[in-house]
Amino acid sequence: MKFCSQCGALVSRRTPAGDTHERFVCDACQTVHYQNPKMVVGCIPEWEDQILLCRRAIEPRLGLWTLPAGFMELHETTAQAAAREALEEANASIEIGDLHTLYNLPHIGQVYLIYRGRLRSLDYAPGEESLEVRLFRESEIPWEQIAFPAVTHALQHFFADRQQGRYVLHLGEHGAPQR
Amino acid sequence: MKFCSQCGALVSRRTPAGDTHERFVCDACQTVHYQNPKMVVGCIPEWEDQILLCRRAIEPRLGLWTLPAGFMELHETTAQAAAREALEEANASIEIGDLHTLYNLPHIGQVYLIYRGRLRSLDYAPGEESLEVRLFRESEIPWEQIAFPAVTHALQHFFADRQQGRYVLHLGEHGAPQR
Repeated sequence: MKFCSQCGALVSRRTPAGDTHERFVCDACQTVHYQNPKMVVGCIPEWEDQILLCRRAIEPRLGLWTLPAGFMELHETTAQAAAREALEEANASIEIGDLHTLYNLPHIGQVYLIYRGRLRSLDYAPGEESLEVRLFRESEIPWEQIAFPAVTHALQHFFADRQQGRYVLHLGEHGAPQR
Repeated sequence: MKFCSQCGALVSRRTPAGDTHERFVCDACQTVHYQNPKMVVGCIPEWEDQILLCRRAIEPRLGLWTLPAGFMELHETTAQAAAREALEEANASIEIGDLHTLYNLPHIGQVYLIYRGRLRSLDYAPGEESLEVRLFRESEIPWEQIAFPAVTHALQHFFADRQQGRYVLHLGEHGAPQR
């Protein structure tokens, strides 16, 4: 950030009075420009004993597999964001269920929220951001070709929960021991 | 938003190629300026059968009672944000526990994440943003003077869960039926 989005003047980095963090502050109009983490919201789409993954058509991690997920938009709820992403990336209609994983990536200012979900039909197909979309049994998951650690974390806990016959919320953090 | 924070030129509102939403886009350097919801993170600090509330010294809702909570910062996890807010608003040291409430406010682009927490001691005091900080038994909660609907939602479900002897995650949404 170099310029004030309100008045176009230069910004500089300083701690406003009464604040505890350095911010970008406009040298002219004094507007404080806060920067906050973003939510990446998605789901684990289930069909019988299989789950749906998408192979990425875009960077980062082009060619690797992921759950349908993406940045939450204004004017939607977290569950609506999860359903929208599945529609955009896999043309899949999903009934969103319980929240399954909350995964922090503090080094890049992201928080993943992954829901469980149910495919309403087998009518799915790659969206613009996907090369390929397909169902996987647990034994078929391409663990070495999963795009993001949050997705690996969510999938591992999903299959462990399924085995135990009970699903709970899993909290995770990049670089920290799992729990 | 009127000016590009990268180059200082004017921005206009349009849908970039391949995108599904209108964005602020720079007329000169073509930078797309995404706007995303923010997380408000806090906790329900417990001490025996009491919980800690803060009376707000700032707008909005000056003078009303709330849980310690605030906007998540970059470079921290959600649990760290919850602990930091309790320290800033109530000078209280909290052991953060399970996630208790996820509450959507899509009309203002906010998502509340409220954890359960344990006060480590009775050493607490109002921070700069609080007029007063005190412990309440359930029967003493000033329900008519709670600052935000997300806080009311979290507290109602907290006491109901406590009564039943089991805590689960509660999903809520402003204006929607509770569940």
